[in-house]
Amino acid sequence: MASDEDDDPTDAGTANSTSRLEAFSDGVFAIAITLLVLDLSVRPSESPLRGVLEAWPIFLAYVVSFLTIGAAWLGHTGLTDRLTRADPLFMRLNLLLLLFVAFLPFPTRLVAGALDDIDEERVYATMYGLTLLGIRIFGFLLDEYALRERLYSKAHVSAELEQERRTILPVVGGYVIAILVGLVAPRVAVGVYCVIGIYLVVPFREVHRLLFRRS
Amino acid sequence: MASDEDDDPTDAGTANSTSRLEAFSDGVFAIAITLLVLDLSVRPSESPLRGVLEAWPIFLAYVVSFLTIGAAWLGHTGLTDRLTRADPLFMRLNLLLLLFVAFLPFPTRLVAGALDDIDEERVYATMYGLTLLGIRIFGFLLDEYALRERLYSKAHVSAELEQERRTILPVVGGYVIAILVGLVAPRVAVGVYCVIGIYLVVPFREVHRLLFRRS
Amino acid sequence: MASDEDDDPTDAGTANSTSRLEAFSDGVFAIAITLLVLDLSVRPSESPLRGVLEAWPIFLAYVVSFLTIGAAWLGHTGLTDRLTRADPLFMRLNLLLLLFVAFLPFPTRLVAGALDDIDEERVYATMYGLTLLGIRIFGFLLDEYALRERLYSKAHVSAELEQERRTILPVVGGYVIAILVGLVAPRVAVGVYCVIGIYLVVPFREVHRLLFRRS
Amino acid sequence: MASDEDDDPTDAGTANSTSRLEAFSDGVFAIAITLLVLDLSVRPSESPLRGVLEAWPIFLAYVVSFLTIGAAWLGHTGLTDRLTRADPLFMRLNLLLLLFVAFLPFPTRLVAGALDDIDEERVYATMYGLTLLGIRIFGFLLDEYALRERLYSKAHVSAELEQERRTILPVVGGYVIAILVGLVAPRVAVGVYCVIGIYLVVPFREVHRLLFRRS
Repeated sequence: MASDEDDDPTDAGTANSTSRLEAFSDGVFAIAITLLVLDLSVRPSESPLRGVLEAWPIFLAYVVSFLTIGAAWLGHTGLTDRLTRADPLFMRLNLLLLLFVAFLPFPTRLVAGALDDIDEERVYATMYGLTLLGIRIFGFLLDEYALRERLYSKAHVSAELEQERRTILPVVGGYVIAILVGLVAPRVAVGVYCVIGIYLVVPFREVHRLLFRRS
Repeated sequence: MASDEDDDPTDAGTANSTSRLEAFSDGVFAIAITLLVLDLSVRPSESPLRGVLEAWPIFLAYVVSFLTIGAAWLGHTGLTDRLTRADPLFMRLNLLLLLFVAFLPFPTRLVAGALDDIDEERVYATMYGLTLLGIRIFGFLLDEYALRERLYSKAHVSAELEQERRTILPVVGGYVIAILVGLVAPRVAVGVYCVIGIYLVVPFREVHRLLFRRS
Repeated sequence: MASDEDDDPTDAGTANSTSRLEAFSDGVFAIAITLLVLDLSVRPSESPLRGVLEAWPIFLAYVVSFLTIGAAWLGHTGLTDRLTRADPLFMRLNLLLLLFVAFLPFPTRLVAGALDDIDEERVYATMYGLTLLGIRIFGFLLDEYALRERLYSKAHVSAELEQERRTILPVVGGYVIAILVGLVAPRVAVGVYCVIGIYLVVPFREVHRLLFRRS
Repeated sequence: MASDEDDDPTDAGTANSTSRLEAFSDGVFAIAITLLVLDLSVRPSESPLRGVLEAWPIFLAYVVSFLTIGAAWLGHTGLTDRLTRADPLFMRLNLLLLLFVAFLPFPTRLVAGALDDIDEERVYATMYGLTLLGIRIFGFLLDEYALRERLYSKAHVSAELEQERRTILPVVGGYVIAILVGLVAPRVAVGVYCVIGIYLVVPFREVHRLLFRRS
């Protein structure tokens, strides 16, 4: 029955939609990742060097958000590599993913600016964690939807996807635990978000391959 | 007579113009939708949690503007899918559409920041509604112009466009009524803008298809 | 002798360079035109409506800058339509054009914020005019360079370019006169910039064609 | 052994990855270079003209950062021109390059705003220099990695790359010396960064060719 929709005349324009989907998404990812810099600041301190050093939580939040958006973008390129066409619902789910990506600079700013007051830290670290979780979950939903609606080319559906699905559970689990931990110890939570960000971006298998190739 | 212009040697470069039209438009849509985050803020309150919860009108305005720009972008991708070439006037009409899109973050900020004073709410909600209306009207004019000047490929002109034209009247009507209501009850107007935004973005037919496919 | 360089193996990658030249330029144009919105603001006034109405110089500066960047983008699409390849110097001249385009939001902000003090108005309107002039002059230099270095496809070099060259002198002349006038009467100068912006964007011939086609 | 990976089925989607790599990178470069304008400002002074003239360090920092990002973008276009495919590690190294590019507006703002206090000047000029150095080093690493992993098309690997490698040592050396000088005389360091920026952007060979072609 679903194959009926595949013959829809609207599909003629699909190739174009995919290219604009990519261009618009690249735009939002690139802008969100670059806007993070606007919220960096150094507070007045005894000396300028101390001011910069004391601003470490701001730099940490910057790096975590940069890594998370970077990882989401990397995942998104993998996703559109597999994609042969996009349907209206896919475009909307993608918009929801971008809503979370574009929103991230806000909790980043709150977390970065709040590390003096434990109550602020708790509330803002929770908001931050929920946004990071939202990015991951909508990335996963997009993948699941594309798979179920057969928007992917068959060549890609096997190994690559398998592996991606294997990482979603530990990552989502890590975020949920960190959000809960953050209700008590928000700085620990931000540390965990940093570790997850690094885990998502560093291609351990590739690094391993590179290091041991010549032995 | 119009066909004379179709043989214009300038048309050789049209394919390129269309791709830059898309790239530039995608850029403006993506930037405007991402810049919205810069105006998010939490005012000092008794507790940080209350501060976040009391900021709901700011988040609501953010979501409404995000949905409206998202819907305008979706409509624009449909439009360029149908487009076979662009002429100088089309490029300018598109610039006017982008003027309203790029302007939207300003009334969004005013509405979001004004929800304490009924006079401010009235004036800013009206500005907001007029901008939303402008986006929709120029999107419609672009469509009409492309149709009249035969810039669309014939394959697309039938069903898809018919359906789009059927929605323009209720949407414009909804905006006009909400703007008038907003002169008295600005918060109600913002609620209506939110409903229209959801209506424009949610693909009810697709959702229906998805839910009832397996029954 | 120049033809030797044309056989340069580097030229193999030229097609790609042109596409990135377009993407990067579209990005800068789109961002500069959208960033203008960040400097819009309404000063406190007796009533919110008065505040909005008294902010007319801010809106005027916004529209003039939007039109000028829009016109520069339109000119740039024409230019890359004609382009068959880009050489290193062309890429750098283009960077200089983008320097002026990316700079424009700054004098726009100064002009918009200064309309209470005649000295400020004079200085800032001059800076504004010089930036507008710089955009036009570097757009022209880019065109001239591409023509002299035979970067254009022959099909386009004739009529289109001729016409563009005919407008450069009156436009540059208009800017120079307005800059001089602005030393005495800065508001008049901003008015002239607005008129030039409209002149650059409105395609009078196309409008004429459209209006008189059916008579 | 490395050739085994070349047959990886993942490579089917490589063309697309490269195009999104370029689009995303162009986005970040374009946004970072345009965001610089947001930090321009004129401090209150006796007269508006003096205010503008006294703001010269701000304009200088703006131009240096614009040139540096421009040069990094030019280098990046050369790099992707040579590229036939991208692998996961290349994508991540590119993200690190973009991290430094996107970060640059922050030390630019610090340097531009600090030129009254020698301690601030020292600390911020050092941060600025380290960021400029980071951009160059990661650009170089990207090049080296692509070369070693044979991501480049063979046609390009010879002359062009040779020449680029010849400039990396003096440029990195220049930055290191300027950073050390900046610990004592930060303004001199910023002057050197400006000279390096001009050196990186101005295509002396091309200018020479142009000037002496007709003799």
